[in-house]
Order: sequence, then C-alpha cells, then structure tokens
Amino acid sequence: MKIEQNKIQDYNQKQEDHQADFQFLAERLNRRGVDVENLLEDFKALQIAIPSWALGSGGTRFGRFALGGQPGTLEEKMSDIGLIHQLTRMAGRISLHIPWDIPEDVPHIQAVAGEYGLEFDAMNSNTFQDQKDQKLSYRFGSLSHTDAAVRQQAIDHNKQVIDYGEALGSKSLTIWLADGSSHPGQSNMHKALRRTGDSIAEIYAHMPEDWSLFIEYKPFEPYFYSTVIPDWGTSYLLATETGERAYTLVDLGHHLPGTNIEQIVGVLISRGKLGGFHFNDSKYADDDITTGSIQPYQLFLIFMEIVQGLRENDQNPSIAYMIDASHNIKDPLLDLMESLDALGQAYIKAKLVDYDVLAEAQEDNDVTLSSMILQDAFQTDVRPLIREFRLRNGGLIDPLGFYRREGIREELIKIRGSETVATGL
Amino acid sequence: MKIEQNKIQDYNQKQEDHQADFQFLAERLNRRGVDVENLLEDFKALQIAIPSWALGSGGTRFGRFALGGQPGTLEEKMSDIGLIHQLTRMAGRISLHIPWDIPEDVPHIQAVAGEYGLEFDAMNSNTFQDQKDQKLSYRFGSLSHTDAAVRQQAIDHNKQVIDYGEALGSKSLTIWLADGSSHPGQSNMHKALRRTGDSIAEIYAHMPEDWSLFIEYKPFEPYFYSTVIPDWGTSYLLATETGERAYTLVDLGHHLPGTNIEQIVGVLISRGKLGGFHFNDSKYADDDITTGSIQPYQLFLIFMEIVQGLRENDQNPSIAYMIDASHNIKDPLLDLMESLDALGQAYIKAKLVDYDVLAEAQEDNDVTLSSMILQDAFQTDVRPLIREFRLRNGGLIDPLGFYRREGIREELIKIRGSETVATGL
Amino acid sequence: MKIEQNKIQDYNQKQEDHQADFQFLAERLNRRGVDVENLLEDFKALQIAIPSWALGSGGTRFGRFALGGQPGTLEEKMSDIGLIHQLTRMAGRISLHIPWDIPEDVPHIQAVAGEYGLEFDAMNSNTFQDQKDQKLSYRFGSLSHTDAAVRQQAIDHNKQVIDYGEALGSKSLTIWLADGSSHPGQSNMHKALRRTGDSIAEIYAHMPEDWSLFIEYKPFEPYFYSTVIPDWGTSYLLATETGERAYTLVDLGHHLPGTNIEQIVGVLISRGKLGGFHFNDSKYADDDITTGSIQPYQLFLIFMEIVQGLRENDQNPSIAYMIDASHNIKDPLLDLMESLDALGQAYIKAKLVDYDVLAEAQEDNDVTLSSMILQDAFQTDVRPLIREFRLRNGGLIDPLGFYRREGIREELIKIRGSETVATGL
Amino acid sequence: MKIEQNKIQDYNQKQEDHQADFQFLAERLNRRGVDVENLLEDFKALQIAIPSWALGSGGTRFGRFALGGQPGTLEEKMSDIGLIHQLTRMAGRISLHIPWDIPEDVPHIQAVAGEYGLEFDAMNSNTFQDQKDQKLSYRFGSLSHTDAAVRQQAIDHNKQVIDYGEALGSKSLTIWLADGSSHPGQSNMHKALRRTGDSIAEIYAHMPEDWSLFIEYKPFEPYFYSTVIPDWGTSYLLATETGERAYTLVDLGHHLPGTNIEQIVGVLISRGKLGGFHFNDSKYADDDITTGSIQPYQLFLIFMEIVQGLRENDQNPSIAYMIDASHNIKDPLLDLMESLDALGQAYIKAKLVDYDVLAEAQEDNDVTLSSMILQDAFQTDVRPLIREFRLRNGGLIDPLGFYRREGIREELIKIRGSETVATGL
Repeated sequence: MKIEQNKIQDYNQKQEDHQADFQFLAERLNRRGVDVENLLEDFKALQIAIPSWALGSGGTRFGRFALGGQPGTLEEKMSDIGLIHQLTRMAGRISLHIPWDIPEDVPHIQAVAGEYGLEFDAMNSNTFQDQKDQKLSYRFGSLSHTDAAVRQQAIDHNKQVIDYGEALGSKSLTIWLADGSSHPGQSNMHKALRRTGDSIAEIYAHMPEDWSLFIEYKPFEPYFYSTVIPDWGTSYLLATETGERAYTLVDLGHHLPGTNIEQIVGVLISRGKLGGFHFNDSKYADDDITTGSIQPYQLFLIFMEIVQGLRENDQNPSIAYMIDASHNIKDPLLDLMESLDALGQAYIKAKLVDYDVLAEAQEDNDVTLSSMILQDAFQTDVRPLIREFRLRNGGLIDPLGFYRREGIREELIKIRGSETVATGL
Repeated sequence: MKIEQNKIQDYNQKQEDHQADFQFLAERLNRRGVDVENLLEDFKALQIAIPSWALGSGGTRFGRFALGGQPGTLEEKMSDIGLIHQLTRMAGRISLHIPWDIPEDVPHIQAVAGEYGLEFDAMNSNTFQDQKDQKLSYRFGSLSHTDAAVRQQAIDHNKQVIDYGEALGSKSLTIWLADGSSHPGQSNMHKALRRTGDSIAEIYAHMPEDWSLFIEYKPFEPYFYSTVIPDWGTSYLLATETGERAYTLVDLGHHLPGTNIEQIVGVLISRGKLGGFHFNDSKYADDDITTGSIQPYQLFLIFMEIVQGLRENDQNPSIAYMIDASHNIKDPLLDLMESLDALGQAYIKAKLVDYDVLAEAQEDNDVTLSSMILQDAFQTDVRPLIREFRLRNGGLIDPLGFYRREGIREELIKIRGSETVATGL
Repeated sequence: MKIEQNKIQDYNQKQEDHQADFQFLAERLNRRGVDVENLLEDFKALQIAIPSWALGSGGTRFGRFALGGQPGTLEEKMSDIGLIHQLTRMAGRISLHIPWDIPEDVPHIQAVAGEYGLEFDAMNSNTFQDQKDQKLSYRFGSLSHTDAAVRQQAIDHNKQVIDYGEALGSKSLTIWLADGSSHPGQSNMHKALRRTGDSIAEIYAHMPEDWSLFIEYKPFEPYFYSTVIPDWGTSYLLATETGERAYTLVDLGHHLPGTNIEQIVGVLISRGKLGGFHFNDSKYADDDITTGSIQPYQLFLIFMEIVQGLRENDQNPSIAYMIDASHNIKDPLLDLMESLDALGQAYIKAKLVDYDVLAEAQEDNDVTLSSMILQDAFQTDVRPLIREFRLRNGGLIDPLGFYRREGIREELIKIRGSETVATGL
Repeated sequence: MKIEQNKIQDYNQKQEDHQADFQFLAERLNRRGVDVENLLEDFKALQIAIPSWALGSGGTRFGRFALGGQPGTLEEKMSDIGLIHQLTRMAGRISLHIPWDIPEDVPHIQAVAGEYGLEFDAMNSNTFQDQKDQKLSYRFGSLSHTDAAVRQQAIDHNKQVIDYGEALGSKSLTIWLADGSSHPGQSNMHKALRRTGDSIAEIYAHMPEDWSLFIEYKPFEPYFYSTVIPDWGTSYLLATETGERAYTLVDLGHHLPGTNIEQIVGVLISRGKLGGFHFNDSKYADDDITTGSIQPYQLFLIFMEIVQGLRENDQNPSIAYMIDASHNIKDPLLDLMESLDALGQAYIKAKLVDYDVLAEAQEDNDVTLSSMILQDAFQTDVRPLIREFRLRNGGLIDPLGFYRREGIREELIKIRGSETVATGL
C-alpha cells in the first residue's frame, strides 16, 4: 500500500507544535555542541531491515490469535514494509527468509522492491523446521547433525539461499542454527560444535567475495538442555575460525538473565567482529516483544557502545540492523513502527554523548560524571529530532497516529480479507 | 495396547540380578529401621495421572517433528496410558483436557477406562486458545477479560468441563489461567486479578460438593510482561478467597530462576492448601522436559517436603500428581516412563528419611547432620525397590527395556500409521 | 554541613537556561491538561528517607575501599542528610538503625533533626549480626530460631527499637528478617515461618496504636538455600495474619530475575497492604546500586502503579519511601542525590499519565494506545520541573554540579579527616 | 593435627557392613565391564586442593559468625588440610593466597607440607582488596586500571606471587581479576579488556617455562554492572591471545542463571584450554556453598565431560581441582569433607559410564538410551567404592562420622582457643 504524498503533507501540517518543539531543542543542542543538521543527515543511514516473516501475527506454542489483512504473498509483504518505510523513512531494507518467501521471479521482485525504495538485507536460511517433502529430518539437528547426509542437505540449503540472495542483490547470509539437545547425554556437545564449524566453512566458501556471514547464538529454545552455539563466545570462536568475513550477530533476546549485552557489543566491535543485530525486547526469555518496550535504557547503552565502538575501530564493517520480534497481540505494522521509534531514539541519544568528555571522565575514574553524561543524553527528549527527520524526508511526523486514524488495518482487511495467514512463525 | 501377562513374566524372569539386588538392599534398609514391606505397600498409592494431551509429539513455536503411531482418538490415548500403567503400575489415572478430548459417550469411555484400570483425575479446561467457531476471542484474556461477555463464555466453558468430569467420575478441576499482558500498560493488573477472582468464584459455586479446584500459577508465556496469576502468592490469595476446597497447584516449570520450589510446597501443605502437581523438569524456563532429568535432587527435596508435610499436617487433602511435559524429540511413552521412574525414586528416597532424627538435628541446628541425612537418603540406590514393586504388582522390572526391545512404537505405527497427529499442544 | 542560602541563590542564577526550559515545558504540559502548578505543589509530599547507615562507604564480602570525610557520629550523619535535603528538598526524613545509631540523648537528637528540617521515618532493627557482648548468637536465626530464648532476645531488641522510635517521634518499624538456611534440610522451613509469625505478633503488640509494621522479604543472602520470608506472598501472608497495621515492604533488589515488581506493587496497594519501599537498582542480584541507574523504565512503571493504585484505593496508607543502596565506589552524598533525581523523575512522569484515558484504552484492549501513553510520559524530559521545584523551595537547580564544583567532599575531609569510618555495612 | 593410625584402624573396624557392601557392588560393576580395581587405583589421582583461606569462617557483607579453633597461622592451616587429607586421602594439595598467607620461611613451610603429605597447587594473587600500606588503591581496578602505575603495581604483585610459588614448588598461578564497573558509563569496557590483556602478557612472561596460567571469569560481584572478564568466552579469548600455557579456569559459582557449565567444560577441553576448577555449589548467585549440595547431577555431568573430554583430547593438560567455598555456618573442616565426598562420587559415577556405548547412542540419536546411560551411572550408589579407596589408603571409611564423634573441633578449640580468626574472606 502506498499513501499519497499530499495526504502525508496534510497530516503533517496538523502537527502544529512540531516546529517550535524542534527549534527549541535544536537550539539547546547546538549550544551544547551537537551539530543538529549533521545529526539529521547522519540519521538517514540508520535503515532497519524488516524481515519478511514479521508482517503477520506471531504466536506461541500455545496457539495464535488471528489478525485480518495479513499479507499472503511476498509482494504483499513488500507492500507492508514499503508502507512502513514511507511513513517512517527508517525501514528501507527487507530481509528474506527461505523457504517461506522464495523470490521465484527475481526481476519482478526487484522491481517491486524498487517501487517501495527497498534494498535486500541479509538472507535467512531455515534448518530448524522440516518442510513438506524434505528428504531428511532436522529433528536431531542440521549443520551439526551426526549424519553427514543431513549436514549436506542443510549446507546445500544454505548455498541455495546464498544463490537467491546473490540474484536479488543481497550481500550477506544470517545463520540462526537452532541445533541443540534437550537431554543431558543426548549429544556430544563439542563434537557437534566441530561438525558445525566444518559445515559453516563449506557455506562460507560458497559465498561471493563481497558477502558476509552472520552467525547468531542463543542459549535455549527450541532445545532445552544445550544449543550448539549458546553464547557470543562460541559464535565468536566459530566466526574467527571460519574467516575474515564471518561475524557474530546479536539477537537481544538470546541471552541468559542478567547478561551485559552492551559489553558484548563493545568487545565485538573492538575486535572487528560485530556483524549485525536482531532487535526486540524481553523481560524473561526470548520474549520477542516490541524493541525498547521493557528496557529502553539498555537499548540506549547498546547504541552508545555502537557509536563509541565505530569511532574507535573503523575495522568493523557497517552493522546490519533488523527487527526480529513476534507480534502476538499487536498489529504487526504498528508494533514495528513502535520498535523503529525506540531504535531511532536510542540512536540519536547515543549520538548526543560527547565521547571525548566521556573518555576523559573514564580515564579519571570520575564515576559520577561518566554516569551523569549517559543519563543526561538518555533523559533528553529527542522525539522532535526524529519527527523532523521524517518530515524532511517525506515521512510522517506522527506515523502511528496516522496509521490508526486513517484506519490502515481496516483498509488492508478490506483488500486482503480477514482470513489470510502470512507464512512464517 | 495390552501386553499379555505371560510375556511380561517371561521378560521379568530374564532379569536375573533383581532378586539378589532387592534382598541385599531390603536387608540393609530393614536394619536401618525402614520397613521395606510397608514401603512397598505404601508405594501403591503413588498413582501419577497422565494427561490426555501427552501421548503425541510436542513442539515449540518453531515447529514440531512428527512421530508415527500417535493416538488419534481418546480411546487410543487411553490405550497408551493403559499400556504405561500395565508396564509400570504407577500410571493408573488419566487427566482429560476439554475441548481436545471430549468424552462424547460417557459409558463407553468409562468402560474403556475400566478395561485399562484407569481412574479419572482432575479435569482441565482451556481458555488460552480460540477454538474453531468460538464466539468471542481469548486474545486479550478469558476469566480476567475486561469484557463481561468473554468472561462469561470462559466461565461457562469451565462449568461444562465440570459437568463432563462429574459424569465420568472425576473429582477436581484444574484451571491454568494463561491470561496476562505482553506490554507495560496493556492491562490494569490488579483489576484483572479482581475480575479473575469473581470468575473463579462462579466456577467454584458450580462444582459438586465433593470436588476440589486447583489454581495453577505461571510467571510468563504465552504473555510476556505479566500474567494474572504469576506466583504461588497470588494463587494462594485466590484459593483462600475462593473457598475451602480451592487449592494451589504447583507446576515445576512455572517459576522464575532460583525459586525454592520445595519451600513453597512445604508452606502450602502446612496451610492445608496444596492441591496438586504438574511434574516436568527444566533448566531455563518452562522447558517441559523429562521429570528428574535436570534436577533430580530438587525433585527429591520436593517429595521430602511432601512426606514431611503430610506427617505434620493431616488437614491437607491427598495431593493430585500429574506429569505435564512436552515430548518434542523423545517417544512420549518412553519419556513418560522415564518420568515415572524419577518420581518413584524421589518418593521412595523421601520415605527413607527418618523424620524424627531429622527434626531433632534441625532443632539442634546441627547443619551437617541434617544435610547428611538428606544426602544419605538421596544417594541410596533405590531402583531395586521400584523393580520389586512393579514385579509384585504385575508390571515389568524393566519397562523401558521391554518397550524398546519389543518394538512397541513400531507396532503402534503399524496399527495407526505414521501420519496420525494427536490433538493437543 | 549547611550551605548559606545566598550561595545557593548565586549558584542558581547562573543556570541561565532554566527559566526558558521550564516555561516551554510547562506550557506544553498545561495544554495537554497537566496542571503544572498543582504538580509542583504535590511534589513536595515526595520526601524520601535516607537511612543513617548510608552516608559512608559500602562494600562487599571481598572488602571495602575507604572514602574520606565519612560521618563518625549520628549528628554528623544527620548533618549529611540535612545537606542533601537542603540541596534537593526531597530528603526530609531520616531512618535510624539500631544498634548502629542509638539516639542516646533524645531531646538533643530531636533538636539536631529540627535544625536540618528532618523527621524520623521508620526505625530499623538488626538481628542479622551478632553485636559485641550479645548474649545469644543469631548464627542460626533470630525471630525464627528453634530456641525460644534466642527468639525472645530478638523480640526484645525489636521492642527496644520501637521504644527508641517512640521517643523520637517515628511512627513505624521495618523488620528485615535475614533468617534462613544455607543447606537443604538445615531448617524445617514452614515451622520456621510459624515461629516467625508468633515472634512478629509479640512485636506488633508492643507497638503504639498509631504505629505501622513493615515486613520486608528477600529471596537469598545472607543465607543461600532458603530465607524465612523469601517473597511478597510470604510477607503478605504474615502481614495479613499479624494485623491491620502490618504491611509489606518492597526492596527493589530483593527479587529473583525477571520478577514483575510493579505488579506486586499494584496488587499490594489494591489490597491496602503496601507499607513502603527500599529503593536501589540492580542488574544481577541485590546489587544495591544507584536507584534508576539500570532500569529507569521499571522505576517509572512502579511509580505509575503507585499513583494509579492510590487513586483507586484510598484504603492503603501513605507509603514510606527510603533509599537503601550501598555506595561502594561513589561518594555516598552524590550517589544519594543521583537516586533522588531518578525518583523525582519517575514520580513526575507517573503524574503526567492521564489515568482516565489509560483506563479506557485498557478497557478497550487497545494495546498500542495504552503502551504509547506510558511511553509518552516516560519519554518526556521532566528535569525542568524538578529544577523548578527545587528552586521554588530553596534548593538548587543543579545540586550535583554544585556539590562537585564547591568541593563539598574535600571540605568534609578537612573537617572529619580521611580515616573516619561510618558504622553500618 | 594428626590422628594416630591405629585409632583410624580401630574406627574403621567398627564399620561392619562395608566389606559386604563393597563386594556386592564390585561384583555387580565388574560384571558390567567396570574394572573396579583399576578404578580404585585411578581414583588416587583425584587430589583436590584446599585453599589456605578456606579453613576459617566465611561470611557475607552483612557479617560473620565466629567459630572457635580457627587456624591462626599458615602452619595451622596446613595442619587442618593435613588432617582432612589424612582422613579422606583426597586433599593432598594446598593452594596459597598471597598476601594472606605469605610463606616467609620457605624450607620450613616445605617441611611442614612434607609432614602432611601436601603438595603446592596453584598460587593465588589478590588485587581485589587494598592491603594496609599499599601505595595505590585498587578501588577502580588493578590489571585493567586506566592508570599505568596501578597496573604495574598489580603486575608486580602477581610476579611476586609467582616467585613465592616457584620457591615452594608450585607450578601455576590463578588470576581471579575482580576488576569491573558498577555503573553504566564508568568504564570503557573493551579498552579495559585490552589493558588487561597487556598486563596478563607481562605476568605470563615472568612465569617459569613449566608453569601454567589460569584465568578465572565471573559475571558480577564485587562490581555490579560489568566485570572485565565476565564469561568463559572472554577468558578463552585472553588465554588464546596470551599464550600456549594460559588456560581458562571454571568456578562453578561464576555463571548467570541457567548457564550450561558442563558444555563449557567439554568445549574447553576439546580445544585444550581447560586449566582448572574452583568447586562449590549455588542456587542463586556466587553462593559458595558445599560442592554438590544443590545440584549433584550437574556436578556429575561436569565430571562426565571431563572424563569423556580427556579420553578424546590428550592435548589438554591435567586439570587443577580446588574447592572454593565459603563456610558461613558449618564447621569448615566438615564442610570441606562433605565437598570432597560429593566430588569423589561425581568422579566415580562419571567413570562408570561406558563412553563407547554412549558415543554410539549419540551417533544414532538414540535420545532415550543416551540419557538412560547417564542416569544409570548417576543412580548407582558408589559410596562403597570411596570408602574402600579410603580404607586401602590409610584413611577413614567414615571421615565425617569420625570427626564428629571424636570431637575434633572441640579439641582444636582447646588448642587454639575460641577467639582466633583465620585470615581470608
């Protein structure tokens, strides 16, 4: 769906406070040494990929509640992402999942992407489920399986995903290896890790030379005793052994309680090995709820490490950002726009920090000053800056309000019906 | 499926070591003051209910791996439980879930149960999923819903479950209320609790006078910010307010990391408010894996509290035991028999403790002695006792070995095919 | 230490942006329906108690790093709290710990308090340590001890604390009962709970009629297997059984990972049983670090429940607020002022919420709207309001900056020396 | 203290059941293919080091309860370890901590060690506390400090510890680096890691060529936001970068909730990088309670990984075992003997596993069989084997009983008084 640009303009004009808000804040920030114009320009680069499986209702093992107007085809999914991008100007990338969204007709899919201003982010393979007519089962693993034939099937699938991606113009592959064990003794865990390393090496060798490989980690679920890649240490070990263009990918929900995620981020960047993020938020486990909805300060600290890290080490490649949440009870499009908002705020607040002053306070062990510097940035209400960014780039000052008041979901239901089901989780 | 009794006898006779093992252990225990004959007699009372949804493959939100020979009807499910009971003599109860397993023809179902020696344990209602053709959705809750009509629908469903149960001869209803919220602000949490209390009162009033109500608690999943009944404190509060025959039910997987579950058990029994258990084990969250497979010592400590608690307070009614696990990669029948074995061991070990000596050591704050008393009971290898119990009662010394060697699963596949799917999770 | 008021005025006058910041924000808020003048007036009531043990360096079992200028006497401790209150206008209460800070000369201590504008908040007893010349040891517990003589000693101590408090004008007693066990089997946990209830009843009976009793809970430390009062459920059970003026006290650090603290707060208020708070923040366990420094959004949600709860239930008495943190590496006075700032922000943001609109969104299950309402309040930069509050009431716009630039700590060291050690943890 | 050998023999002769118990078990095991004689011979190699700081009462930040008869000198500490070793035959190693236990007179200390049959295990440095008259403070870190002078002081201390150890005949240094931060922003975490790597490199260079360096990790405490070496991944990264003889050391209490410790153990051995263990047990955090007292099955799984790992990779050097617990309420000597017992049982049970059969079951993904193999080993009561081992090697069949009945603690109090305090935590 595309919204007519003059409708957007009309809506924006009703946001009467915005100009004053923005100017007041910009003046304050400029006086503090923040180059607001520059910041708004920089902000364009923060494009967050939306995965093709995120446009429909998610669920749990206990079931799923239907939502009308879900996209039934890849084109409709791209249309939904295009709409989000049009309204927010922050979602200009799509991340495809194979085999849920196979781009059968590449030129057509590229044309659709072009129409919505979307580029192809990392490709995602799936060896955690058995697909219909699949020859061998992944019940006991895929890239780590004890049986070489199953491993080969999983390797070949990943190669095929690379091929699809290459045709589309993607430049990276994300592997979330769900493999693991649910019972003590079930698996020789370190042998499984060795087999996984060998499988990944073969996939890596198949990648074009300008591609990157992202290796995700997760401590549990869908297996409940061990996973082959449970933590950043294992992912980093694999990435290091695999090759220069293999990196660790951090999913915010894939950590044990209390993990200092921002430290992992900082250390990975300092070693040039942070490949990307899957964004979401959680209170308990891999809850996959709206980014920034539970721990917004942690999200800010993560972006602080990103901004600081990239200043200090230009060897780390540009980072791939993606939202990976499950929209169990909210409208996925609203939910994604809430997440984008939280990400934008965290990024801008991280940009407000004066890293030279911070470094000095850290050098002096001035604990109060260094924590005050971060708190000051976090407590600043930066929403006028995001609104201005969107306004200047053809988006909406208030995309959530627009979406709700214009009844977009109702319109989607009219077009697509209330019984459609999106492929995916 | 029923195994011919002489086949069982033949198999038992091959377990040549058993008699010597049993006699050696019995002699040792008798000398320590344990009345082994009495213990074996007592043990008959430990009958663990199997839920009708536990006979098929479980899965996660990421998918499910098929298993052949799954039961397709309630009769087949009862046949599977009957088989487990025949082999182990510990599973003489079935717990029905409505609407997955509605007993349309009550006399027939009762006859089938009688054939397998099964009694009807607690009934289970389901208001955490929308069923086909359901009028109102439980997307935003059921017994706690803001809309009185939804609450009424959920109340009526529970009443109907009671009616089914009454017809069958069940004596209790278990309510697992999944209601909750996934986002801060979504729900007024204490109002939701009030509404829940009112709904439960209406259900309670519908129960026959000799029935009990069990109220489960769980901190998260399928909702990820709050649940209406997150902990034992809330369940206890509701049970106390609801009435004398309302009790708390403890599911081992429904706790935050580190929770001292055995303390909850002890305190509830001392207040006469422990209704029952859902057994499983977990390392991370509600993993629902084989009982005793991760923390067997904790399971022993729980049974220690049960045995000790019931000695000290005869006001607590007899406790309803059920296995509630998810068989994602193991054969459900094998998995259930492993759980039964772990439960039997934990119970017998708890019975080996001399509670008078323990009480004295506790009174004296003799920390080393009191911990040694428990360790001594736990470290004792009590398997010969369970084997003897099964042998004496027509079961198998080695039910797992028998099941595997006799190829029971293969036979079930022959009978039922490899494509059947059991209703349930 | 007291700062001359004209020095404060001079310093305030240098904060040139404040007036414009405040007016801009006030105008925006007023237009949104927030009565800013009223809010600033209300805010006066948020007085946070500072405990007498919080003015010196804290430490861990691994040691403690000294800080100069620590208060050596109760008078010096009151002076430090007086200073914090003068600068922030939010700390007009002191919470005494017995026996660390026994008010030997009551009229004198009252006079000193009067001088600094301090009132006496809840009294704190200590039965978790053995004091020099103490007759019986608390090694194996105090109010829950198996030995009646030890229990009586602990009861008598609590009575004495009440007597001290009554003389001073305090109106409540907080019991943090550290009692517990470190080894399975060490304690009969439910009997220990019964004994505790009996001990508390005797203490309760000793309280003047206008006093309240606050019962704290904590899952572990200093005992590592069980505590007698591990969770809010146990505290609530004890409070209910003890009497009308017995309440639960919530220490933010005393929860297992993932606990939804704000839900506990909301439920307790709805039952009229929330007595008070011990504020701090934590990432892992009972870390006792600066309030709001790790999870500021959680702190906001807690205040949201407080404000909402007290609107809905005027049966809950006014809540006692106290900061209970350990200042291991920061200057305690700076650290406390950071915590006060975080508390002030959380409170004001909670006041910005339109609870009628929120209630309506909740009633409609408009998940996005209800979460947006909270996010909107939280994202608002309310610092100009706190600054204005302090300015109007004789405090400092920027107390932390003042303290640092004026070299208050250095001055305290000059006065008190660098070797003083404050009593306490 | 030394017990006369004939007293030991007399006591052993009273354990009338032992011979029959042992023979019954040995016969059963031999028939199952376990070479019991070989196993008893092997078992001699499992010597667990006792740290010199573990012989006195431990405590928490809330205080400490005194115990009489604590050792006041290094010689007395060695005497206590000697006693434990004499009774159990499993504690023939001592691990020294500098500066708590400086061996001023090396030949004398060596002679004392010889007398008790003790060898010197890993040396331990301490840069987490400030010692009296220390020039620079470790308040803000040591090997990671921003100030090069502090780092150098910490490096020099470690070098000195190596020198002490070399004189005594130790062959390794354990570094537990407590450095970290308690507040977001306080530290540039990845720069701190770099500085730490540089400091460790200098210490490593100072080690004799036949020495090993063990790098410990811990997620929190005494700092509460970050530690420089929070997890095995960071320790492994440092060990790999430092050199061939740098290894990771695993303290069982230094993990976030749910961590699969045994997997870490297996992976480290497979990479030849597991240096040693600090044994204890915990339910919540770094509780430091009796080894095996909470999760005995986890302890078994860890030893299973050790035995299996060393079979598969002979590149990993022999592993250094040490008990690192805090004896807050138990008699330290009893507590240590309980831990030794748990370690012995876990080791022997791990040796009962037939790893060839297990490997085959794993290869076949026979989940039930592989979990049954482990359960079978764990459920076996192996206490007769440990008793026999002790009997054959001059120790006691029942060391705990002997210690209690003979009133050893009372005797120590007579000798040393009830007011002594051991240096250490």
